[in-house]
Amino acid sequence: MDATIPGGRPAVPAAHLDPRAPGWGVGVDIGGTKVLAVLLDPAGRVVGKHRVATRPGHVGLVDAVTTSVRALTTAHDVPAAALAGVGIGVPGVVDPVSGTVEHAVNVGVDRPFAMADAVADALGARVRVRVENDLNVAVLGAAHTLGPAGERRDLAFLALGTGVAAGLLLDGTLRRGAHRAAGEVGHLTLVPDGLPCGCGQRGCLEQYASGSALDAAWPSPDGRPAPLVLFEAAAAGDPRAVAVRDRFVWAVAGAVRILVLTCDVDAVVVGGGVSGVGEPLLRAVRAELARATAASAFLGSLRLAERVHLAPQHVPVGAVGAALVGRGEIG
Amino acid sequence: MDATIPGGRPAVPAAHLDPRAPGWGVGVDIGGTKVLAVLLDPAGRVVGKHRVATRPGHVGLVDAVTTSVRALTTAHDVPAAALAGVGIGVPGVVDPVSGTVEHAVNVGVDRPFAMADAVADALGARVRVRVENDLNVAVLGAAHTLGPAGERRDLAFLALGTGVAAGLLLDGTLRRGAHRAAGEVGHLTLVPDGLPCGCGQRGCLEQYASGSALDAAWPSPDGRPAPLVLFEAAAAGDPRAVAVRDRFVWAVAGAVRILVLTCDVDAVVVGGGVSGVGEPLLRAVRAELARATAASAFLGSLRLAERVHLAPQHVPVGAVGAALVGRGEIG
Repeated sequence: MDATIPGGRPAVPAAHLDPRAPGWGVGVDIGGTKVLAVLLDPAGRVVGKHRVATRPGHVGLVDAVTTSVRALTTAHDVPAAALAGVGIGVPGVVDPVSGTVEHAVNVGVDRPFAMADAVADALGARVRVRVENDLNVAVLGAAHTLGPAGERRDLAFLALGTGVAAGLLLDGTLRRGAHRAAGEVGHLTLVPDGLPCGCGQRGCLEQYASGSALDAAWPSPDGRPAPLVLFEAAAAGDPRAVAVRDRFVWAVAGAVRILVLTCDVDAVVVGGGVSGVGEPLLRAVRAELARATAASAFLGSLRLAERVHLAPQHVPVGAVGAALVGRGEIG
Repeated sequence: MDATIPGGRPAVPAAHLDPRAPGWGVGVDIGGTKVLAVLLDPAGRVVGKHRVATRPGHVGLVDAVTTSVRALTTAHDVPAAALAGVGIGVPGVVDPVSGTVEHAVNVGVDRPFAMADAVADALGARVRVRVENDLNVAVLGAAHTLGPAGERRDLAFLALGTGVAAGLLLDGTLRRGAHRAAGEVGHLTLVPDGLPCGCGQRGCLEQYASGSALDAAWPSPDGRPAPLVLFEAAAAGDPRAVAVRDRFVWAVAGAVRILVLTCDVDAVVVGGGVSGVGEPLLRAVRAELARATAASAFLGSLRLAERVHLAPQHVPVGAVGAALVGRGEIG
């Protein structure tokens, strides 16, 4: 486990947040490999971080959350009574009212699991626990972090990781979808009759714009992240690397176009593992959007390139969003 | 002009409607070829319709609206004082707060036009006039018409006409978009490097799923609507017609997938001129969605085929939605 690390920005509550100052919150972002938690102070600042490896399954997940909460509150002398709540982001289908999780196969949950109740029991009944989908907490955390307060109310968080999917905050409201499937753009067809996808279709966006797609197309020779190695090789002029990078960037730009021309989100924040490439990725995606829309006055008027942003590299937006949910600021 | 025609369904206000019984309303749907108006009684029923040809430009549009309002209220003895308002749907970029219309080139508005004020002046200042985008009024009218009340709060109205675009009602709220461009799916790329589009790009969905695309691919020999002629020829076994129909249906199914996998709308209502084909179109689109998603458990779980519906053939949903806007029921 890492030590607790100070970080974050001075924050005022955004317009979609409940203005009744909500006290301290812990947010826990459960991923396929790690469980990352933050402690948020009453002003919305990240004052501590905590990290453990993911142990899949009900017991392992509950242990990871309770360990994180106890480590952070102990390290910062926050009594249980001062804790407004604990929020958890999970990569699966979540019922935010009951706190039940389904289809979170990456973390070992294959049948409905009443996670909020299980964590509340383990922590002691006085702590309020809320659960939300991982992309929904990420878009909330991105909105909170990228501020200024109240300005970022309308954005998509486009996660490029094992798969490709987006969380949507539309005019300050989470768009979960009528069947909790909003933002599943990874399984839209990018290339008719293209590469086979694990979902059973062919040519899915995910086969071109995900971290997994890059890992397959440009395996890392040295253990460093494949996207970094690829972008470096392309920058150094390797023509094969340039071709792989350009196809990837074209696909990411396609995802941005889908999100903007369908939902007209004000901003698309690119996150997930691949976003660790940083500025070279952002520059390439913006350049591709500018290139692809240059011939079209209509597309040009949408200013796609300007809407794309990178997720902040040193703020765990998922955990921050989970803490906001935990404090009950998001209905 | 047509006579006023009784029509519509007994309606109770839906959940997104203001329950303070709003009185009578006139809704006017301005299209490229015709201006269609309805009179809505206080219970939300269509009690009269009125139709004139579109005369493009500021003067012609204001004349058409005022003529429609006077004809309907006179025919049904509705005094001006009983009229809660007049709503207008316009194919352009609309500021619903100021009632200003821009980029409505199909109806002769190329510079910002304060349409609400102009119509209110022409009608007399006591009548409240509101303006909204044509797809937004269509999705509101579809929600109202397809009821039962309160159930249809989450849908897209997918218009297949000269172009392809959608109106979005998400959990009872119109999604206009951060820059009033939500639902512009017609200019998403369906076929990389495909047919050239008037927008300047290639392979846009609009080049495959619009009425214009069908007119070009299968010109009507006898003045009847091209989509009808094509579907009849395909049903009769003409292999060229089958190929053209199947490609069109594939493209429409693609639009449905984009709307559902991005916004996860509960329903997609297919409207616009092509929807006049009726049940054969609906069956073909549902069959294509079932075929395309059969290989994918994930896509199957989204039940795409079940979400698709036809716009009601005998209710002018755009004008009905405009009347709801006119009565101030939609913020």
